Amino acid sequence: MATLINSLLSHEQSAHLAEQVMAYCDELAHISQTLGIIDRRYLTPEHKQANDKLAQWAAQSQLQHWEDEAGNQWIRLPAQQQDNLPHEAPRVIMGSHTDSVPDGGRYDGPLGVVGPLVLLKHFAESRVQFPFHLDVVGFGDEEGTRFGSTLLGSSAICGMWQSRWRELTDENGVSLAQAMYDFGLDVSKVSEAQIDSSRVLAYLETHIEQGPVLEERGKPLAAVKGIAGARRFNITLKGQAGHAGTVPMVLRHDPLVIASHWITQVQQMATATSDSEFPVVATVGRLEVRPGAVNVVPGEVRMSLDIRSLSDEARDAVFDSLQELLEVEAAFHQLECQFEPTHNASAVSCNDEMTRSLNQLVTHYFGDSAPLVSGAGHDAMALAMRVPATMLFVRCKGGVSHHPDESIMTSDAAAALQVMAAFVTDIARKAT
Amino acid sequence: MATLINSLLSHEQSAHLAEQVMAYCDELAHISQTLGIIDRRYLTPEHKQANDKLAQWAAQSQLQHWEDEAGNQWIRLPAQQQDNLPHEAPRVIMGSHTDSVPDGGRYDGPLGVVGPLVLLKHFAESRVQFPFHLDVVGFGDEEGTRFGSTLLGSSAICGMWQSRWRELTDENGVSLAQAMYDFGLDVSKVSEAQIDSSRVLAYLETHIEQGPVLEERGKPLAAVKGIAGARRFNITLKGQAGHAGTVPMVLRHDPLVIASHWITQVQQMATATSDSEFPVVATVGRLEVRPGAVNVVPGEVRMSLDIRSLSDEARDAVFDSLQELLEVEAAFHQLECQFEPTHNASAVSCNDEMTRSLNQLVTHYFGDSAPLVSGAGHDAMALAMRVPATMLFVRCKGGVSHHPDESIMTSDAAAALQVMAAFVTDIARKAT
Repeated sequence: MATLINSLLSHEQSAHLAEQVMAYCDELAHISQTLGIIDRRYLTPEHKQANDKLAQWAAQSQLQHWEDEAGNQWIRLPAQQQDNLPHEAPRVIMGSHTDSVPDGGRYDGPLGVVGPLVLLKHFAESRVQFPFHLDVVGFGDEEGTRFGSTLLGSSAICGMWQSRWRELTDENGVSLAQAMYDFGLDVSKVSEAQIDSSRVLAYLETHIEQGPVLEERGKPLAAVKGIAGARRFNITLKGQAGHAGTVPMVLRHDPLVIASHWITQVQQMATATSDSEFPVVATVGRLEVRPGAVNVVPGEVRMSLDIRSLSDEARDAVFDSLQELLEVEAAFHQLECQFEPTHNASAVSCNDEMTRSLNQLVTHYFGDSAPLVSGAGHDAMALAMRVPATMLFVRCKGGVSHHPDESIMTSDAAAALQVMAAFVTDIARKAT
Repeated sequence: MATLINSLLSHEQSAHLAEQVMAYCDELAHISQTLGIIDRRYLTPEHKQANDKLAQWAAQSQLQHWEDEAGNQWIRLPAQQQDNLPHEAPRVIMGSHTDSVPDGGRYDGPLGVVGPLVLLKHFAESRVQFPFHLDVVGFGDEEGTRFGSTLLGSSAICGMWQSRWRELTDENGVSLAQAMYDFGLDVSKVSEAQIDSSRVLAYLETHIEQGPVLEERGKPLAAVKGIAGARRFNITLKGQAGHAGTVPMVLRHDPLVIASHWITQVQQMATATSDSEFPVVATVGRLEVRPGAVNVVPGEVRMSLDIRSLSDEARDAVFDSLQELLEVEAAFHQLECQFEPTHNASAVSCNDEMTRSLNQLVTHYFGDSAPLVSGAGHDAMALAMRVPATMLFVRCKGGVSHHPDESIMTSDAAAALQVMAAFVTDIARKAT
């Protein structure tokens, strides 16, 4: 395969290309619907601008590019063997999303689009080709910040678009159907965005870790073995409000005290799984006290629980114990206690063989860095249902994401480019 | 003392008079600046209406009545011995306040004004007199809901009015000076409301308990030995926000977990004092989590602490331990921790001898019911600085106050009337 001789990147090449990746991420960050922050949502003029920008960068290197019926932007380095009709060639897809949360960062999403795009430009300019179409996709919606439902772009290409979504509305009451029309799309044709999964050899999503583990390890990268399944609950504890000065401690039915004791148990039980095969993370992120006055014993607490693991079973076992603990303690203290489930997603495993290969490449270049579990959702969740998918996590500063302080090192972007190039080379070698 | 023969109340008399007390409380409850709720604040037209209503009830029984320079309403059964000039006669004062919190109840305040007023009407109609002026006062402001500063009415008669208060403003920007003018008063003459404390033999304030202890005891009444001193703090704990799915438990700096652990310690340490001579009550009534999203590990917690005891020393010892516990734990988990004091009042003891007498009367009529500590502030706090003062607590349903559900039994109002009558009779006997 003479054309693959140059498909691996030297340290110098990757460092050079990484500069381009960082510059492109900076440039995309300027495309925002809200002045002074990064805010780029699905089917907005800024989404269109971002797609156009990607297309323009692709065109500079004579790469193919098109927007699909769901507003996702595609870039293609066509397969080498032109004897087959191009539309029948197998595909390897790399991608992530181009939308952001309001006041988000510049890497969550774009890094996994711009990174492979820069790589494709390099391949095109170096006349490297593969025995498959090498595609990059920028999904229009992963965060779900405009219409409240996540993974819209990747669901569309995986044939999991739900027709009821056309009625979703944004904060201004604009329906998704109308937003598509305004964007130049036709909601009744979204199903045409679906790809033929049988032709997809691999999907690789590169993404910032959004957590502190790689920084703690001192490693730039890790493969991802799966995406944790999350369950979420709204929990209400009702006791009896009272005067902070006149109700003796022993006669109180203070739901904040009971909630507090339980929060320490949530922390303890989740922490106890940290060294197990399937760690569980559990978070009380929202807590409101009513009536909420300095001189009033609380009468009601409303709080949220978010609990995740790569093993639904491990997660549910911890949750069941926690629910029982709170219910028993609430009953003992004569409080009402209610758990209302608000979200339930199963864990998604990445393709084993693909994750193993990716991990070997990471280890080859940068030393041992055991595969991680993603606690956050990603487009790869939708793709993993249909095609062999895996993910590559890139170290980010302080584990911060969804925040303007989101930051990565150029050298880590270079590391990711080296591994991406090796990954597609690996597939090409196996395919021939 | 022939005139004192009828100064005690039979069970039937008190039951009859209690019906009147309940009816008057109901009638005052209709005087509200906000439709559909009880809301009566200082120097409003409704305050004036309430004063006028009290004066009208007094006039029906030929009692003297006047409004003082701070807007407090007075009613007087003049002293029997007319050889002395009336303004030189000693005085016994019973009273409480006529203002309410917004959406308050009908007994917190009015019971301690209307109760003795009904008793004075009974004395006047029965031609009972005492060797002292028997005065009832309805203080215009105790709750502090209009101008943010409490005990304005009682501070004025005790000579503790502060001249800077004239600049306090209400929620509409109206100054206290202007409000006084609109009410028909002159703020520069408030000092004339001050009474000669050397002539006051006793101040007795009857008030609903605002707590559940009497209900728990199955007793209608108890004397009050003192009013707890409160300290209040705003506490800020800063950790590091993070993604609920991606930050492993062991790498978190979650201020809500640390706050929760501390709240359980607040409860434990205060509860441990319950059977001591000076119990401490401590309450976290307000708690806010930032950013406060279901899928974000908290980055900051702001909460309040209210801590009270009849012993400032006992209270401060518990507080010091609690502050140290939180500061040490916060430092250990790399959180910032700040305590900002917002309020500091010393405990006020009721007059020992007077409380002992009152307790003997309660015990005589209704069996043993040990004197309580008031955890809430009362006009008696101001009076106790200047004159021999004590309080009588009346059982209220569920300990509820500052709420439309505030409720007392007519038979408990009757019990209070019997004890009030016996209390002034007792003083008269000792004075002669």
